[in-house]
Amino acid sequence: MSDLPPEIRDRVTFDANGLVPAIIQDRDTRDVLMLGYMNDVALHRTLTSGRVWFWSRSRQEYWRKGDTSGAIQLVHGVEVDCDGDAILVSVTQKIAACHTGKWRCFDEGGALPVVADEFEKNTTDEG
Amino acid sequence: MSDLPPEIRDRVTFDANGLVPAIIQDRDTRDVLMLGYMNDVALHRTLTSGRVWFWSRSRQEYWRKGDTSGAIQLVHGVEVDCDGDAILVSVTQKIAACHTGKWRCFDEGGALPVVADEFEKNTTDEG
Repeated sequence: MSDLPPEIRDRVTFDANGLVPAIIQDRDTRDVLMLGYMNDVALHRTLTSGRVWFWSRSRQEYWRKGDTSGAIQLVHGVEVDCDGDAILVSVTQKIAACHTGKWRCFDEGGALPVVADEFEKNTTDEG
Repeated sequence: MSDLPPEIRDRVTFDANGLVPAIIQDRDTRDVLMLGYMNDVALHRTLTSGRVWFWSRSRQEYWRKGDTSGAIQLVHGVEVDCDGDAILVSVTQKIAACHTGKWRCFDEGGALPVVADEFEKNTTDEG
């Protein structure tokens, strides 16, 4: 248990492991930078410190983004979704979000092939 | 098991329940609309049909977004993150993403209070 106020805790649905996925979006470019996980302590620290905190599932420890890399995330706003099981954090990203040096973690993983002609067909179908 | 090609499956890390979180971003507004979950079948259908498919954890069934509401999502691109455990889908959203009628699911859940003066302090600290 953290110091997360009850009125905030009531709006967030943590999973069986006590975690909620947090989408990080850059405020200026509006790029989706990465997805991380927060427990109640990490969320509380994110809401109250101005910096983004995660719970690292692989390392099983708290992780204040950028402490070792300098790639810090400054918090502008935090929103919760309609059923409380996802968080969206608007940030100013310093340097780059991905540990590989790429701006977005999705720049590192890259695109999967999609069938574009089916997209065109669906577009036409919908007028 | 789906027909998801092995070279794609190798790039995606499904969790213990066979799911991967999928962030849905509107291509035009760049708004983050919602977070859903895909299994290998839903991902394969998303990559090949031009429409976004999810696995509904609450209903335990496949869910092609918009079939009942008309709020369909047309797929422009799909990316995977650096460690393969998150998906980002760029879409054209029809009507609105949230089942409540709000454009973004985060419009329905709304903002959590953040400490802004700490943000200013952190900004100053970082120069």
